Amino acid sequence: MNVDGKHFRSIWLGDDGWSAEIIDQTRLPHEFVIERLETLEDAAKAIEVMQVRGAPLIGATAAYGICLALREDAGDEALEAAEARLRRTRPTAVNLMWALEEMLAAVRNLPRSDRLAAAYRRAAEICDDDVATNRSIGEHGLGIIEQIAANKPGETVNILTHCNAGWLATVDWGTALSPIYLAHDKGLPVHVWADETRPRNQGAALTAWELNSHGVSHAIIADNAGGHLMQHGRVDMVITGTDRTAGNGDVCNKIGTYLKALAARDNDVPFYVALPHSTIDWAIADGMRDIPIEERDGAEVTHMRGRMADGAMMTIEISSPGSPAANPAFDVTPASLVTRLITERGVCQASRAGLLSLYPEQGDA
Amino acid sequence: MNVDGKHFRSIWLGDDGWSAEIIDQTRLPHEFVIERLETLEDAAKAIEVMQVRGAPLIGATAAYGICLALREDAGDEALEAAEARLRRTRPTAVNLMWALEEMLAAVRNLPRSDRLAAAYRRAAEICDDDVATNRSIGEHGLGIIEQIAANKPGETVNILTHCNAGWLATVDWGTALSPIYLAHDKGLPVHVWADETRPRNQGAALTAWELNSHGVSHAIIADNAGGHLMQHGRVDMVITGTDRTAGNGDVCNKIGTYLKALAARDNDVPFYVALPHSTIDWAIADGMRDIPIEERDGAEVTHMRGRMADGAMMTIEISSPGSPAANPAFDVTPASLVTRLITERGVCQASRAGLLSLYPEQGDA
Repeated sequence: MNVDGKHFRSIWLGDDGWSAEIIDQTRLPHEFVIERLETLEDAAKAIEVMQVRGAPLIGATAAYGICLALREDAGDEALEAAEARLRRTRPTAVNLMWALEEMLAAVRNLPRSDRLAAAYRRAAEICDDDVATNRSIGEHGLGIIEQIAANKPGETVNILTHCNAGWLATVDWGTALSPIYLAHDKGLPVHVWADETRPRNQGAALTAWELNSHGVSHAIIADNAGGHLMQHGRVDMVITGTDRTAGNGDVCNKIGTYLKALAARDNDVPFYVALPHSTIDWAIADGMRDIPIEERDGAEVTHMRGRMADGAMMTIEISSPGSPAANPAFDVTPASLVTRLITERGVCQASRAGLLSLYPEQGDA
Repeated sequence: MNVDGKHFRSIWLGDDGWSAEIIDQTRLPHEFVIERLETLEDAAKAIEVMQVRGAPLIGATAAYGICLALREDAGDEALEAAEARLRRTRPTAVNLMWALEEMLAAVRNLPRSDRLAAAYRRAAEICDDDVATNRSIGEHGLGIIEQIAANKPGETVNILTHCNAGWLATVDWGTALSPIYLAHDKGLPVHVWADETRPRNQGAALTAWELNSHGVSHAIIADNAGGHLMQHGRVDMVITGTDRTAGNGDVCNKIGTYLKALAARDNDVPFYVALPHSTIDWAIADGMRDIPIEERDGAEVTHMRGRMADGAMMTIEISSPGSPAANPAFDVTPASLVTRLITERGVCQASRAGLLSLYPEQGDA
């Protein structure tokens, strides 16, 4: 999407035709810095230190990591070593594994001399496919926003979102934010309540930065505020992304999503979850019971990084010294609280039957 | 309660016999600093900048503010000006208004020469009454904790709380935390999940500091985490305080309380609200409809103050520069989500009938 009027993806081929360029997301929202990835190690490090994050973008970066490795050595051993190096960067990222397998399948059986070009072609396809998928999610979600707008002509449609499921987490468009960008670009009056999303503040840092850069009206709110806004009719719909969608429609997303879903139900606000098919884990029949929840370092709760008045970055302790913190990173929102799922194939009920109506080929499994 | 083994109240008469001493709560949890209030303006500022906060403590501070004003001028005009000055400090604090009326009633009809001594007497009574009230709330709440403990012998009772309704918010004991202190002091195994309570982090800063100072087992959690903990059976009860209780049992408390009440109901976790009678606003028949909600500065959301590694305090910007923030400070939890109210007179249903069963004298009004 746009940054100060210029269109960007979150990863793209450099003007030299071989390096990959990314936005260093660890510097956002305070600095917009483009980083050139020239080697396998550059790509691996970018994933490891979270200069890139978000499942689709991690996959795309790994794909270019394979390309960069092949530039130096297109042999079988080097290819395997590159795959192993990239696989270690974020061991739990399903999409990373998928992208690496796609890349290997595209080059493994080719003569060495053909591998490099094939790798760049496949990496570009992976990126373009992600953009098309997200654009398609956006179009299906746009229909929902248009319906709400039709019911309040001339008024702003107020949309609450949690965490960052925007273009920075994908190659472009994002998932939850894709319908919002399409609505905005089409001239619909939309306003976004961006949950700050403690403890890592992806909402206040990344979602707000994205929306501000693209010119979409928004306000950051504490995670505590959404229920109150819904009680007072100031939220027309909620859209979030999901890290993992169970086969029954339960949704595992950033911690706190469940609380917003409860408030949405209590106030008759529709609650949508946007997702590409790649986040659906068909093997999980009961998300509440079976999706394991990552417990992260308590220091993410007790300490905070940000910018001082002089522009320099600083980490500060914000809680009572000596008090421990617990930090579950995700929660599961039961399907019963989800109004509809929005995928690249359309909108469906959050249930096994709903998902199968869009992905009938999974019914054979 | 105790700080490193020594007992403190949150406000007390100085050794000089006329100044009021407070703990500067804006310096907590990083520094324990005692502040001397010597003038009306000291007291008003202490309330405004939230060196003191919490309804009862605000009331007590305002009471001493009247004393300090009378030291300089015991005339009617000065008294009225002092009352007006203090009334403006936190316009939504009903307890503040109550304390000011008490003080005026105690001195207004006296000759000037008698006013000062009467004011100090009444201020001391307000403080002592608050301590007795909170101790009594604690005893009624203790009964509830003991019942839960009896149902899981040998196991820890896990209690979630939001914001700070501890002794720092009152003169001593606190409201929501009073039953917890009594349970702890009695040797019951209790563990507290302290919601950090964005944007001002009263939970992470003050509740955690209180519990740590008194030796009560606890962990800080992001406000987003409580629902997940309840889904997994890790919360036995919720207790919060309230800034204002409507005559119908609706409860106005720190923003985010409503979300926890929703999660409690969804997971069959009992949700208690502890309050002294002074927070009951009998004139408000419908809290959801009629309690105005303070909208505070967005900078509380976008900036954060804390301690750097070198020990110095620093304010940092934690969100995307240029993005606005909305900051509603309270929300209303409808009575239907409140299992019981705990007052100094006992435990009752969150309803007009429930409240009248404890305060029958209000039925005549």
